[in-house]
Amino acid sequence: MGSDVAMSPKITVELLRQLRQAMRNTKYIAEPIQAYIVPSGDAHQSEYIAPCDCRREFICGFNGSAGTAIVTEKHAAMWTDGRYFLQASQQMDNNWTLMKMGLKETLSQEDWLISVLPDNSTVGVDPWIIAADQWKNMSKALASAGHSLVAVQDNLIDAIWRDRPTRPSTQLLTLGLGFTGLTWQDKMTALRSKMAERKISWFVATALDEIAWLFNLRGSDIEYNPVFFAYAIVGMNTIRLFVDIKRLAVPTVREHLQLDTPSKAELSVQTAPYESVFTELQAVCASLGPKEKVWISDKASCALTQVIPKAHRSPIPYTHLCLAKAVKNATEIQGMKMAHIKDAVALCELFAWLEKEIPKGTVTEISAADKAEELRSQQKDFVGLSFPSISSVGPNGAIIHYRPLPETNRTLSLNEIYLLDSGAQYIDGTTDVTRTMHFGSPSAYEKETFTYVLKGHIAVSAAIFPNGTKGHLLDSFARQALWESGLDYLHGTGHGVGCFLNVHEGPCGISYKTFADEPLEAGMIVSDEPGYYEDGLFGIRIENVVLVVPAKPKYNYRNKGSLTFEPLTLVPIQAKMVNTDLLTQKERDWVNEYHRQCRETIGAELERQGRKEAMDWLIRETQPIA
Amino acid sequence: MGSDVAMSPKITVELLRQLRQAMRNTKYIAEPIQAYIVPSGDAHQSEYIAPCDCRREFICGFNGSAGTAIVTEKHAAMWTDGRYFLQASQQMDNNWTLMKMGLKETLSQEDWLISVLPDNSTVGVDPWIIAADQWKNMSKALASAGHSLVAVQDNLIDAIWRDRPTRPSTQLLTLGLGFTGLTWQDKMTALRSKMAERKISWFVATALDEIAWLFNLRGSDIEYNPVFFAYAIVGMNTIRLFVDIKRLAVPTVREHLQLDTPSKAELSVQTAPYESVFTELQAVCASLGPKEKVWISDKASCALTQVIPKAHRSPIPYTHLCLAKAVKNATEIQGMKMAHIKDAVALCELFAWLEKEIPKGTVTEISAADKAEELRSQQKDFVGLSFPSISSVGPNGAIIHYRPLPETNRTLSLNEIYLLDSGAQYIDGTTDVTRTMHFGSPSAYEKETFTYVLKGHIAVSAAIFPNGTKGHLLDSFARQALWESGLDYLHGTGHGVGCFLNVHEGPCGISYKTFADEPLEAGMIVSDEPGYYEDGLFGIRIENVVLVVPAKPKYNYRNKGSLTFEPLTLVPIQAKMVNTDLLTQKERDWVNEYHRQCRETIGAELERQGRKEAMDWLIRETQPIA
Repeated sequence: MGSDVAMSPKITVELLRQLRQAMRNTKYIAEPIQAYIVPSGDAHQSEYIAPCDCRREFICGFNGSAGTAIVTEKHAAMWTDGRYFLQASQQMDNNWTLMKMGLKETLSQEDWLISVLPDNSTVGVDPWIIAADQWKNMSKALASAGHSLVAVQDNLIDAIWRDRPTRPSTQLLTLGLGFTGLTWQDKMTALRSKMAERKISWFVATALDEIAWLFNLRGSDIEYNPVFFAYAIVGMNTIRLFVDIKRLAVPTVREHLQLDTPSKAELSVQTAPYESVFTELQAVCASLGPKEKVWISDKASCALTQVIPKAHRSPIPYTHLCLAKAVKNATEIQGMKMAHIKDAVALCELFAWLEKEIPKGTVTEISAADKAEELRSQQKDFVGLSFPSISSVGPNGAIIHYRPLPETNRTLSLNEIYLLDSGAQYIDGTTDVTRTMHFGSPSAYEKETFTYVLKGHIAVSAAIFPNGTKGHLLDSFARQALWESGLDYLHGTGHGVGCFLNVHEGPCGISYKTFADEPLEAGMIVSDEPGYYEDGLFGIRIENVVLVVPAKPKYNYRNKGSLTFEPLTLVPIQAKMVNTDLLTQKERDWVNEYHRQCRETIGAELERQGRKEAMDWLIRETQPIA
Repeated sequence: MGSDVAMSPKITVELLRQLRQAMRNTKYIAEPIQAYIVPSGDAHQSEYIAPCDCRREFICGFNGSAGTAIVTEKHAAMWTDGRYFLQASQQMDNNWTLMKMGLKETLSQEDWLISVLPDNSTVGVDPWIIAADQWKNMSKALASAGHSLVAVQDNLIDAIWRDRPTRPSTQLLTLGLGFTGLTWQDKMTALRSKMAERKISWFVATALDEIAWLFNLRGSDIEYNPVFFAYAIVGMNTIRLFVDIKRLAVPTVREHLQLDTPSKAELSVQTAPYESVFTELQAVCASLGPKEKVWISDKASCALTQVIPKAHRSPIPYTHLCLAKAVKNATEIQGMKMAHIKDAVALCELFAWLEKEIPKGTVTEISAADKAEELRSQQKDFVGLSFPSISSVGPNGAIIHYRPLPETNRTLSLNEIYLLDSGAQYIDGTTDVTRTMHFGSPSAYEKETFTYVLKGHIAVSAAIFPNGTKGHLLDSFARQALWESGLDYLHGTGHGVGCFLNVHEGPCGISYKTFADEPLEAGMIVSDEPGYYEDGLFGIRIENVVLVVPAKPKYNYRNKGSLTFEPLTLVPIQAKMVNTDLLTQKERDWVNEYHRQCRETIGAELERQGRKEAMDWLIRETQPIA
């Protein structure tokens, strides 16, 4: 995501010719390289990236949020996951081979390189846009087959990219205690106490959302993500913030960071240009004592990681900030709840409007998404969308991260399923919700599969599990009903959600992939979004954002305590799509209780805002099911 | 397991004094070491070990199957998992600290060493009994804190262990095609084709069960495990078997291995003494071409792994043999089914006998276990038990790997729950079954928790899941009902089961731990054994051995195909312990269908064997539940 989804393939013959020329050009590299890797991230390993960083899209045409392109002298291949198989196959021309990750027969990038490269090949990559852990794995695998991975300092895509956009530098927004619950000074102190506990002298922050969270600042450098390009280096008595210096001219920002106020030395922020982080980190490392350690995420760029001598490097799978940010405090939870109420108001209005307008045949995927944005923008403290709305009708719904474009735009009708996955940034919180609706009469098969997805959604949402349980242990609950009928979906079940921050955040999630996730704990916020997709026919997904809360089951084994989820999203789930015969009584009770909460909480706000039609729709859609 | 379970602590003051002396003795080491690690395995990283290898038990007293002891100048600590917390705390004196793995507050071995060691310490370990991957992790962690891990060639426990038993060398048993389905020559050819596929020149087999499986040979060097001490090195034209040469004097063995028959060079077995593997592997490695690779499991000993120069080493998380052995062929499946039928006959007899004898007050944990063994031994091709029977009454049932001893022996009564986890080796297969029974009137709480465990057992056994699913994704199904009531159990749900081989085998299992497990596939055999344990009161476990089989659900998403389980164990589950109100209709149907199969299959065999009382018991215990 992050830019438009074109559904016709990009013609890449000439670009590939130029790139292969650059791969042999001694202007950029001492020796020719036989392969060049183009990862999808930026220097901060962001998932969503600014236009100037969309290098993988530039070279192959595919613009989903995840994917890696590799070009050799003879081949060009692009790896992406199940969400994007259809989209990628439509966006790339036949110079490219689509490598479908997660399928048994698909080679990994390493194995593919080994299978196609001549003996003793050299593979190049820009060390700023490959994470240290990926570099390590790739380098090791290539070495084991007699090849080598080299850092190419000049980015070869930039070298052939005319009119590459410049790096954004938007205005910074300061957040007060009423939104954050903690001052940036409090967060700094907590960070340092974790550093002291682990005997760490320095911490290098490279993830944009962690820096924004730490300093209680927001920007809009990357569409949908309220972050700004920056690095930070924190010592026990030093705070260095690397950011385009022009941005610090604003009085509110200067005051927020206390740049002009004498403050305690250890809470005084030294600012420096964004680009100077490399040399400043070199200087920090040059002055390290023999036992001093520097914390850096193993997801940080290879370039920055390798500045730190190995003996001083303490790589961590996720930073203290990442975990502290994931566990929301009471203020943040309150903000997230408010944001979700406003968001539900907008969606109730939207669905009431759709019900009325669709029969006229004038509503399209694009106009529905625009209407959703318009209605959200009427809500207090609305900032923008949290990701491009996935507004999809019928077969487009099967493209998991679809975004409507004029050439793909379908009209909403009484005959096809409509899937809307959308969300917004409000100053008090971030939302992400998917509802799948039919405005006519769904088929028995559509209802059956929708009901399996609903059963999976409920199984996760209502799950009670011991403290200390990792999210991946809940993933199968979401699939059980689908599996029983021989069905499945090729994406994870949930991701962490930031508070007026990135809609996808670590370190927790609910996925069959057992990434380094930390145990779920009360205060964490994740999505619960199982789905089912029939290529060429329809897509179904039911997504709520849910808060991890303590549960009080009958017993308390070894005093470990239990957890469960509380839905923050309060938008009715279309009863018309449910085959109630397939639900257990417990599941029916869950639906009715959920709809009671929607009616109570969102109803009160609709009333307050005087939105009568939406109120009528809400009342109708929250009738108990039998 | 592997030797007796003493329930009074071993006094270790003097032994620890001697070990600490050895840690400073230049007879064994150039420089004094500050800590010595005593892992629980042997040179083959076997789970069950021969008496001569029970070094960790010797030093600390704890004799469970899993645990690592570490002795420093001032401290002694022992790590084990939830199955053994109670047992370990009873077997170790207060010189030892029990480190409860899996609890949040428990330090890892590395972190504990770092927290207690003086600066720049040296930690020693016998490189033969630590796996290469464990060495690597430990070495890295210690180095990061300024310490170092060194290989101590003389085992320091052996140095202080008077009367250490000698290494066993039992008679070898040859298995024909009727039991194995494949000749050892077939298996060798399949191994070599995998080696060729991956461009591997040599394979070093170190796991005893893999060597036994490969050569279609069995031994009895380790109690309960029909294996023999050996190594094998296989090249594309060479087969070297390292084994006590005396064992090869037997004509049947010589003929089986074709030692005296001229055969194709590449299928001719060269034999060499067990101890010569080190020097022979050195010789193989000395002659390697520049690109040649040697396969060795990363679970192989550090000593043997390091013989292979790093550039030639191709470490693998599990070997081809491990995976090939896990997927049983039709002959093996048929054998396992037969073994389970015979085993069920013995158990039906046992339970009928117990029902009659318990009211007399003369049956104890030990005599019940002995009776079970006696009844099993009456069955055809019985070889021995597959592990020490866990025969436990009331509170002893909460000791997950309990084994009755004269001083702990409780009498079976009408008032307490009886848990029997037992199994046998037959020449056609290996069994492992747990039943939990009450011979009087169980309490409502006992029935409630039993029913949750049963629901978990059924959830796994009846699960339908896509091809390619890893076992760990099914673990939560077994816990869902317990979790909902705030309960849990601190062990995995299932392990691979060998065919007349080890009762625990890799690479697949069903566990919350996400070890390097391969996807489940049709033909694999695992256990399904959720439980619930109340310390000081009772233990509940319901265990069947189940076969992975293709499932045919309604749909077939992306032609991936589905799998499910077929129970091989066919022993009634006590209906008296079930609170049927807590079961869904589907679960009741599962129980009734399972009991129908028990009655049909085991009934026929009981009839054939003329075991009337057991038949009556079976009929009673398999009445449908309402």
